[in-house]
Order: sequence, then C-alpha cells, then structure tokens
Amino acid sequence: MKIQAAIDRVTLDEAQALSKKLDPYVDIIELGTSLPKDYGVFALQDIQEQLTHAEMLYDLKTIDEGDYEFTQGYRSGADILTVMGASSKATIEKCLKVAKDCHKQAMIDLMEVDDEKLAEIADFPEAIYCLHHSQDAGRDTNPAGTVAAFHEKYPHLPHIAIAGGVDLESTRALADQGLAEIVIVGSKLVKTPDPVQSAIEFQEAKQ
Amino acid sequence: MKIQAAIDRVTLDEAQALSKKLDPYVDIIELGTSLPKDYGVFALQDIQEQLTHAEMLYDLKTIDEGDYEFTQGYRSGADILTVMGASSKATIEKCLKVAKDCHKQAMIDLMEVDDEKLAEIADFPEAIYCLHHSQDAGRDTNPAGTVAAFHEKYPHLPHIAIAGGVDLESTRALADQGLAEIVIVGSKLVKTPDPVQSAIEFQEAKQ
Repeated sequence: MKIQAAIDRVTLDEAQALSKKLDPYVDIIELGTSLPKDYGVFALQDIQEQLTHAEMLYDLKTIDEGDYEFTQGYRSGADILTVMGASSKATIEKCLKVAKDCHKQAMIDLMEVDDEKLAEIADFPEAIYCLHHSQDAGRDTNPAGTVAAFHEKYPHLPHIAIAGGVDLESTRALADQGLAEIVIVGSKLVKTPDPVQSAIEFQEAKQ
Repeated sequence: MKIQAAIDRVTLDEAQALSKKLDPYVDIIELGTSLPKDYGVFALQDIQEQLTHAEMLYDLKTIDEGDYEFTQGYRSGADILTVMGASSKATIEKCLKVAKDCHKQAMIDLMEVDDEKLAEIADFPEAIYCLHHSQDAGRDTNPAGTVAAFHEKYPHLPHIAIAGGVDLESTRALADQGLAEIVIVGSKLVKTPDPVQSAIEFQEAKQ
C-alpha cells in the first residue's frame, strides 16, 4: 500500500520545500488542485524534477478536454493525473489513452459519482479509482468500509485509492484489509508540526 | 445579448495579445480552462488588467473547494467564474456565496448534468446557467432549441448562456428568440484569420 501525501492551498515555494522534505518518506506526492489552478502545471515541473524517490501526482480534476489536459500534465512531469468520474465517458477514455501512450497512470476521482454513473465507467481495470468525499459536502467517512463496499461491487477493478479523513488508525485498518493500493492523506500528514515525523508514522501504520 | 469570446489552448502571450485586440468588440472575454490550468489564475491578472471594455471570465470549472477557488479567481481579476453543475450542491452554494460577497457573477456549467441533477440545482436564479456540450462527446447541437427547452422547463432561471457550435446563423436565431443572455463563441470567432472582423460580424448578427 502506498502513502500519498496531499499538499494543497500553499504557495509554490512552500509546496516545493515540503515536497523535497517528504520525498524520501512517502510513496506519492500529490500537488492538490489549488496548485495547478493558482500557478498552472508548467510551474509545477520544477517541483517534480527535484524528487528522487516519490511519484508525482497533479490533482488536475479534468472534466473535459481530456486529451489536452493530460498531455500538458504528463509533459510537465506528472506520473499520475486525475480525471473526474463525473466527466463524460469519452473524456475518461481520452485521458486513459494519453496515460497509456505516455506510459503513465490515470486516477478516476469518484467524487459526486452516483451508482448509475459508476456502473457506466467501471470498465477501466488499468485506472486507479479514487473513492473520495467532496471536501464541501462534509460527510463522515469510514475508509475501510468504503473500500470494502467498492471492492465487493467491482472486484475486477484492482487499483483503489481512498481519500478523505484518513488517519493513522484507518491506515492500519486499510493495511490489514489489503484492498486499497493508495491511501491519500492530507492535513493529518502535511499540516502537522512535523510532517516528516507524521509521514514516518503513516509508513509504520501501513506495515 | 452578450457575445463571449472564448480564448483557449494558446500561450499566455497569445491570450494577452488576442484579449487586448478583442476587448472593444466583444462583451465578455473568456480565458478557457487551458489558461488557468497551464499558467494558473495568478498569471491571468495581467490580461484582465489591460481590458477597458469587456468583462473577464476565467473558465475555472470548479468541482470542489468552491470557497477557495472562487476567492482566488475573483482576487485575480475575474468578473465571472465557472463552477460545474456536476459538483455537489454544497460546492455550488459556496461558489455563489463568494460571488455575492465579492459582487461578482458565477456561471454554472451544465456539462454532463442529467435531468435529475439539474432539477436539484435549479434554484439559483442569480446564477448564469451555461448550456454546454462536452467538447469530447462530439454531439450535434442546436443552440436555440437547447435554450428553448431549458427555458420551458426552468422559466424562473433568467440568466442563460449557451456554448457549443455557435455560429453567425445560430447567433441570429438566438437574438431573435430573446432568451439567452450570453452566447459563447470559440473557434468561429478567435480562430478565424481576422478575429476582430469576426467579432464585429457576431455583434451585427445579434442586433
């Protein structure tokens, strides 16, 4: 299981400094949507280029123009890019095609995707499906339960990421469960007084 | 009826030059999603500041974190920002609250919004509802027919924008119809050999 540290709503300089510090201690560094939207993907390449260990994810939240946005994102250094499950299926297919052509990965963000739409887009076993609750909706989350329910319904989709309210305890539960490939941790890792120490604790929790 | 010229998939310098040229001849300049995503909203402010006539729209396509993205967008000079209708209702409400607080406007992009979701988010008469077909879906469009169908179903929503395949002929039809407040024109205005001349023709078509 990989630990993905989500850096968001900071300046470009802060994102650069934090990425460099966390690089040896996490598996994936996510630059949250505020960073591409405030500074643009071109500006993010400098941050990616300094990484020596972690993979780089830009949370683009593409919802249209899949071809263009994914091409720009991978060119600017991302290993993984995100597309909204709420996009048209054609958009998702375009994103996955660009990912394949670039030998990179695509993550489908299932925020605000209902069961009907999910069934329609559940035939991409190469994609990472990100179970995720909107930050604005403010619902309670039970990460391991959410993953179990998804896996039961879609056992043919092997790449599962889970975001939203993940702490050390739920990371342990997810590691024991063995279904999620990626746990996405935000404030509970990057907004603590010592993010490196927090990252080490999350790595220990997943053992 | 306002003519909105959508500038997209060009460099920042090209967007700046084209915005300046079109400013006197269109009502709204849209910087399409590629511009905030490639360069970030902070970089767009220089373009907005040179406008003397047209309003400025950044096509942010916000789908989460409505508070943050709309605050950043208006601070960076936008008069109008876009939020996806496919967002949670809470996200749309947050965007509209920021718009109101900043005395600016918000546009709800109805791409990939089905009838059920539309009914759920059809109670914001202050918002501009943008009828829009995904560029990836490749469907045929009949702008005036699309507007008429929307108006019949939601007569209490007075602010309608229409995008996708709008040409001079459909602009005339939309002007005669008198329902749409904004017509969004992309390649048929900005990608012609003489965009200023094209803008003048669109302004004549709406008379």
